[in-house]
Amino acid sequence: MTELADRTAGTEPGRSTTPAAGRPGAPEQPAVDVAALGEQLLGKWADVRRHARAVSGQPELHKIEGLTHTEHRRRAFGQLEHLVRHEAVHRAFPSALGGNDDHGGNIAGFEELVTADPSLQIKAGVQWGLFGSAVMHLGTEDHHRKWLPGIMSLAIPGCFAMTETGHGSDVASIATTATYDPAAEEFVIHTPFRAAWKDYIGNAAIDGLGAVVFAQLLTKGVNHGVHAFYLDLRDPDTKEFLPGIGGEDDGVKGGLNGIDNGRLHFANVRIPRTNLLNRYGDVDAEGNYTSPIASPGRRFFTMLGTLVQGRVSLDGAAVAASKLALKTAIQYATERRQFNASSQTDEEVLLDYQRHQRRLFTRLATTYAASFAHEQLLEKFDDVFSGRHDTDEDRQDLETLAAALKPLSTWHALDTLQECREACGGAGFLIENRFASLRADLDVYVTFEGDNTVLLQLVAKRLLADYAKEFRNANVGVLARYVVSQATGTALHRSGLRQVAQFMADSGSVQKAAIAIRDESSQRALLTDRVQTMVAQVGAALKGANRLPQRQGAALFNAHQHELIEAAQAHAELLQWEAFTEALGNVTDPGTHKVLTWLRDLFGLSLIEKNLSWYLMNGRLSMQRGRAVGEYINRLLVKIRPHAVDLVDAFGYGPEHLRAEISTGAEKIRQDEARDYFRKQRASGQAPVDEKILLARTTLQSKAARA
Amino acid sequence: MTELADRTAGTEPGRSTTPAAGRPGAPEQPAVDVAALGEQLLGKWADVRRHARAVSGQPELHKIEGLTHTEHRRRAFGQLEHLVRHEAVHRAFPSALGGNDDHGGNIAGFEELVTADPSLQIKAGVQWGLFGSAVMHLGTEDHHRKWLPGIMSLAIPGCFAMTETGHGSDVASIATTATYDPAAEEFVIHTPFRAAWKDYIGNAAIDGLGAVVFAQLLTKGVNHGVHAFYLDLRDPDTKEFLPGIGGEDDGVKGGLNGIDNGRLHFANVRIPRTNLLNRYGDVDAEGNYTSPIASPGRRFFTMLGTLVQGRVSLDGAAVAASKLALKTAIQYATERRQFNASSQTDEEVLLDYQRHQRRLFTRLATTYAASFAHEQLLEKFDDVFSGRHDTDEDRQDLETLAAALKPLSTWHALDTLQECREACGGAGFLIENRFASLRADLDVYVTFEGDNTVLLQLVAKRLLADYAKEFRNANVGVLARYVVSQATGTALHRSGLRQVAQFMADSGSVQKAAIAIRDESSQRALLTDRVQTMVAQVGAALKGANRLPQRQGAALFNAHQHELIEAAQAHAELLQWEAFTEALGNVTDPGTHKVLTWLRDLFGLSLIEKNLSWYLMNGRLSMQRGRAVGEYINRLLVKIRPHAVDLVDAFGYGPEHLRAEISTGAEKIRQDEARDYFRKQRASGQAPVDEKILLARTTLQSKAARA
Repeated sequence: MTELADRTAGTEPGRSTTPAAGRPGAPEQPAVDVAALGEQLLGKWADVRRHARAVSGQPELHKIEGLTHTEHRRRAFGQLEHLVRHEAVHRAFPSALGGNDDHGGNIAGFEELVTADPSLQIKAGVQWGLFGSAVMHLGTEDHHRKWLPGIMSLAIPGCFAMTETGHGSDVASIATTATYDPAAEEFVIHTPFRAAWKDYIGNAAIDGLGAVVFAQLLTKGVNHGVHAFYLDLRDPDTKEFLPGIGGEDDGVKGGLNGIDNGRLHFANVRIPRTNLLNRYGDVDAEGNYTSPIASPGRRFFTMLGTLVQGRVSLDGAAVAASKLALKTAIQYATERRQFNASSQTDEEVLLDYQRHQRRLFTRLATTYAASFAHEQLLEKFDDVFSGRHDTDEDRQDLETLAAALKPLSTWHALDTLQECREACGGAGFLIENRFASLRADLDVYVTFEGDNTVLLQLVAKRLLADYAKEFRNANVGVLARYVVSQATGTALHRSGLRQVAQFMADSGSVQKAAIAIRDESSQRALLTDRVQTMVAQVGAALKGANRLPQRQGAALFNAHQHELIEAAQAHAELLQWEAFTEALGNVTDPGTHKVLTWLRDLFGLSLIEKNLSWYLMNGRLSMQRGRAVGEYINRLLVKIRPHAVDLVDAFGYGPEHLRAEISTGAEKIRQDEARDYFRKQRASGQAPVDEKILLARTTLQSKAARA
Repeated sequence: MTELADRTAGTEPGRSTTPAAGRPGAPEQPAVDVAALGEQLLGKWADVRRHARAVSGQPELHKIEGLTHTEHRRRAFGQLEHLVRHEAVHRAFPSALGGNDDHGGNIAGFEELVTADPSLQIKAGVQWGLFGSAVMHLGTEDHHRKWLPGIMSLAIPGCFAMTETGHGSDVASIATTATYDPAAEEFVIHTPFRAAWKDYIGNAAIDGLGAVVFAQLLTKGVNHGVHAFYLDLRDPDTKEFLPGIGGEDDGVKGGLNGIDNGRLHFANVRIPRTNLLNRYGDVDAEGNYTSPIASPGRRFFTMLGTLVQGRVSLDGAAVAASKLALKTAIQYATERRQFNASSQTDEEVLLDYQRHQRRLFTRLATTYAASFAHEQLLEKFDDVFSGRHDTDEDRQDLETLAAALKPLSTWHALDTLQECREACGGAGFLIENRFASLRADLDVYVTFEGDNTVLLQLVAKRLLADYAKEFRNANVGVLARYVVSQATGTALHRSGLRQVAQFMADSGSVQKAAIAIRDESSQRALLTDRVQTMVAQVGAALKGANRLPQRQGAALFNAHQHELIEAAQAHAELLQWEAFTEALGNVTDPGTHKVLTWLRDLFGLSLIEKNLSWYLMNGRLSMQRGRAVGEYINRLLVKIRPHAVDLVDAFGYGPEHLRAEISTGAEKIRQDEARDYFRKQRASGQAPVDEKILLARTTLQSKAARA
C-alpha cells in the first residue's frame, strides 16, 4: 500500500516559491491536512479503494503502450484472469456463490482499475458488470446456478449484446427478435436486417463464448418489448461461432484497444425457452406471457435499470483519471521554468503564471466537486442495489442523478486530460506521460453507456415533469422546491434550498441578495435560481405541447432542445456544487476547511462566470457585480497557489498509478542542473558576455566620449 | 481528379426532409452553387491544391491504422520518397535546383497532405519545410549547392534541431553552444547539461543523416545569440551516430507515430567554420563576428522568421482536417435516424435535431471563417517570401497574423474532430471513420511550432505596442484605428473599420448602433469594439509597468495575463470574421451569397454569444438584445439546414480523402432496408401487435363493457 505521508513529504520542493507562500512569519497562511483530506476523498469504501489501488499498482496490470490491438487484446484477457485470482471483481455477486453482495464496494473497486489500463477496466466491466450482472439481475436462481460460477471464474467470457448498428442509446427500438415457438418450446433469435446487427459489443470479436442478447420478445403475435436471453455464442473448444451465428471485428478504435469489440448477427438461432432471463417477464410452455410488472413501459425501465451501474462506475472512473492528470500536470508546473519575466537569471515556474493557474486550478476545483458528487451517487446506488432504499422513486432518483453526473464528469475528464497535456507542452504529447493515452481511452466514455447528450435530455424531461407536478398547485413559495427532489437527498440540501427559496421570497431579488457573490449562500442562490428559472421558462414555452398534433408538438419541443439540455447541465452543476459544499461541512481541520472553501468558491464562481451572460440578461447580477466575478476568481487562484500540490497529493495516487516520466521530479533535477551550471559559470568569471550587453556598454562609452 | 458536380449530384438523398426545404413551390429558397463556391474555397493556388489532392488520394500515401510505431515510421519514410517522385514537395526551392520559387503554392500543396496521413505531412514538413528551408533561408549559395540537392532528393534525411528538453517555445533561451575555435577554424557544438538536449526532433530517432542545429554562437568571449549550424549526424552507411553525438528515441506519442521523434546531444562535436549558416551572421577565420543586422534582437527574429511558414501551414492543415470531419459528420447526420419524436413509424434524421444543428453548424461556420482567413494569411506569406512585399513591417504583420490564426484554427480542428466524433456516437469512435485518428495526430498542432498560448501572448504584446503608439497622439477618432494595422491589409478592412469608428463616434454608443445585431455593420461594430476596449483596458492597467522594479512590473503583467490572452483571441476572431465578410464580397451567385451570409451571421453571432457577458457588462448590449442573440442563432440553424450538405460538398473532398465508412452512404442503405422491412411487415398484416397497444385496446373494451 502506498503511504500518503511519505509522498507528501517528498513533494515539499514543489511548493510555491512566491513570496507570500513560503515566507516565514506569515502565520495566517493555512495548511492542508493532506492525510485527512485524502481519507475523506477515499470515502465510504476507502478500504476497497486501497485494495483496488494496490492491485492496480501491480505491473502485470499496467497498459503497455505501442502494442498492436491484437497484442493488447491478448494482454487484457490475461489481466482479467489476474483480477479473478486477486479477488478484485466479485464483490457484487451473491455471497452464496463466493461474492460479497457488496454493490457499492464493487463499483468503488472497479473505478480504480482505470489507473492500470482503461481497456482492462472496461473489459472487466463487460464481463462482470454487464454480462454477469445481466444474468444476476435479470435472471433467476436457476440461471445464477448455471452460469454465474463460470462467468465469475472467466470460464465463460461473454457479451452484453444490446446495442445495434441502427440503435445505440435508443434501446427500445432495437430490432433483433426472439420469437417463441411453442411446438419446440424454444425461442428463435433472429436478426431481420443489417441495421439490427449487434455492434460495438465487447468480447464479441474474439473471446466471447456466451452472450446475453437483448431482443423484442414475440409470442402469440404480441410484441412484449425488449427482454434478455442467454445464448451460447462459440464452441468452447474450437472458438468458432455456433451455427446461425456470425460476426465481424470492429477493428481498431480511437482507444480501449485491449477490448475485442465486434458485431454479431443471428439467423434463426434456437435456444431453450428457459434461456429467457425471466425475472421481469416469463413465457410458459404454451407461450403465455406473464410479468410481475403490468406496465410495459415500467417493465422496460426496470430491466434497463441495471444499466445504471455502468453510468455510476464511469462517473467514478472519469474522476479518477482527472485526478491522475492533475497530479502530474500540477507537480510538473511547480518544477518547470519557462521565460524569465521577473529576473535576468531565473525563469518563472509555470504554476506562477496566472493563465496556467486558471487552466489547472479551475479544473482542480471541478474535479473535487465531481469527486464529492460521485461519492453521493455511489452511496445512493448502494442504497438502491442493496435493497435498503429501493422504492420506485429511489430508483428514478438514482437514474436521474447518474444521468446528470456521468455526462459532466466524463466530458470533464477529456477536457482535463487535454488541458493538462497542453499545459505540459511537447512532453505532454509523449505517451510516457500518459495524458494522450488516457484521453484516447476515455474518449468513448462520453457516448457509451448512454450518450451524454441523450442522458442530459433524460434529466431535462425529469425536471420538466417535476416542474409540472409542482406547478399544478403552484404558488411562489413552493415554486423553488422542485429542485429539491432532484438533489441527493440530504437534510442539508433540503434546508439549504428551502432557505434560498425563502430568502429569495423575502428579498424579492437575487441581485440584491448577492451582496457578496463569494459567500456560500449567494453562490447557492445564483446557481439554484438559474436552474429553476430555466426550467420554468422552457416549461412555459412547452406548455400544451402534448395537446398539439404530434408533428407540431415535436417541432415545438425540438425548438427548445438546446435550452433544455442547458437547463439539465445547470442542474447537474448545482448538484456538484451542493456535494462539494456538503463535503466542506465534514472537514474538521480549520486549515483544510479554509483552503477547500477557496476551492469550492472557485468552482462556484467559475460556474457563474461561465454563465455570466445569463445572470446579466436575467437581471440576477448587476453589470458592476458581473465584472467582479473574474477579479474574484483571479484572487482565488493566488490564494490556492501555495496549496496546489497538497490538493493533488490528497488524491493519494502514487508513482505506481501515475507512471508519468514528468511526475517523477526529473524536471526539477534537470532545472537544478542547468541553474547550477550557469551559477558556476558566472562565478568563474568565464561566462561569455551577451552581445546585447556589449552593445549597450559600447553605446554608453561612445556617449561618454562625445560628452 | 475528383469531380465536384458528380459528388454533389450523388448527395441529393441527403438533403433535408423538413417540409420547408424540399417542398415544391417554395421558390424563395436559395440554392448554393457548389462548384463555384468550391472554386472560391480552393483559392489562389487552386491548381496546386487539385494536384496535391490527387497525390494525397493515392492509396500508397494513406495511413494504415493499427500499425506499430516502428512499422508506421518505415511506411512514412517510403512515402516521402513517393512524394519526391511525384514532384509534390519542391515548389519552394530555387528554380536553379529544380524547384519553382513558389512559396505560397508550396504551402498550399503541403496542407492537403494532411488528408493522406498527418504523419506523412509533418515528416515532409520536417525534411523540406524545416531542415531544407533552414539551409535555404539561413544558408548562402555554397550551402545551397552543397546540401539542397541531397535534401530535396531525400538522399540526406535531416533534422531541424532547435527545441530542447528545457526550452520549447522560448528559443532564445536554448543552451546548446557553438564555440568558435580560431586555431582549428572550427565550431565546437556542445550540450552543457541534460536540459539542453535537443528534444522532440523529427528524424532524430532513426532516419536523420544531417541536421541543422541551433546553438548560442560564442566567439571571442561574446555570445552573439542563437544561430544555425549544419552538422552531419550519422554515418550514411552504418546509420550510426558520428563520434560525440548521442541520442534517444522519444518513443510512442499521442499521435503522428509515423515520425521518429527523438533527442540529440553533442559532446564537443567539431564542424568546419563554414558550416555556420551565415546569411544573417558570420564569423571569419580569426573569429570576428559580423552581421548585416546590427541589432541582436532584430537578427534573432529575422532568423526565426522562417519558422512562420510552419505556423502558416499548420493553420491550413487544421482547416483541411476540420473540413474532412464536418463533411463526414454532416453527411451521416442526414442519413442516420434516431428516436421518433414526430411519428410512430419514422425516426428523425439526426440533422433535424436542434442540438445537432447547433453542434455541427456553428463549427461549420467557424471552419468557413478559418478557411477564408487562412487564404489571406497564405497570400500575405507569399507576398513576403516572394519578396514582393517584404519590408520589416510586412514581416511583422505576417508573424502577428500567423500567431493569431494558428492557435484558433488548430484548437478549432481538435474541437471539431471531437464534436463530430461524438455526434456520430459509437461509430465515431471506430478508427474506420477517422475522427479519432485525425484528432490524435492533430493534437500536437496546438503546442508545436509555437505553443498556442504563447503565440496569443505575442499577439497581445503587439496589440499593446500598437495601442501605445496610437495613444501617444490620441484622440477619440483615431483610437479605434490601431486594429487596422493588424488586419490583413485590404482596403475593405480599412474603410470598414474606419466607418465603424466614425459610426461609433457619431452615435456615441454601440448599444444604440446595434439596432439589428444580425446586420453586418452591427456585428463588425460589436466585434471590433470588444477588441479595442479590451486592449485599452489592459493597456491602461499596465501603464507604467515598465517603470516599476522588474519583479513588480512582471507581477502586474502576470495579474493581467488572462485578460491579455482573451484580448488576443478576440482580435484573432475579428480577423476571421473580416476574412469571411471579405470573401462574401467575392461571391457573385445570389443564392450562394444568401446562404453564406447566413453562415457568416451564424459565425458572428456565435462569437457574440460566446462573449455575451462582456457585451452586457460593458453596456454594449441591452439585456433584451442579449436575449435575442440565442434566438437569432436558432433561426439561422433552421435556415442553414437545407444547405448543409451543399456547404460541406463545396469543400471538394472525395471518398479517396474522406475514407470514412459512414460517409459512403452505407447508413442510408441500412436505414432504407430497415424501413422497408417494417413497411412490408405492416402491409402483410403479419406484424406483431405491440403489448402497449393491446393494453390500451383492452382498457377501452372493458370500459365499453362497463358502460
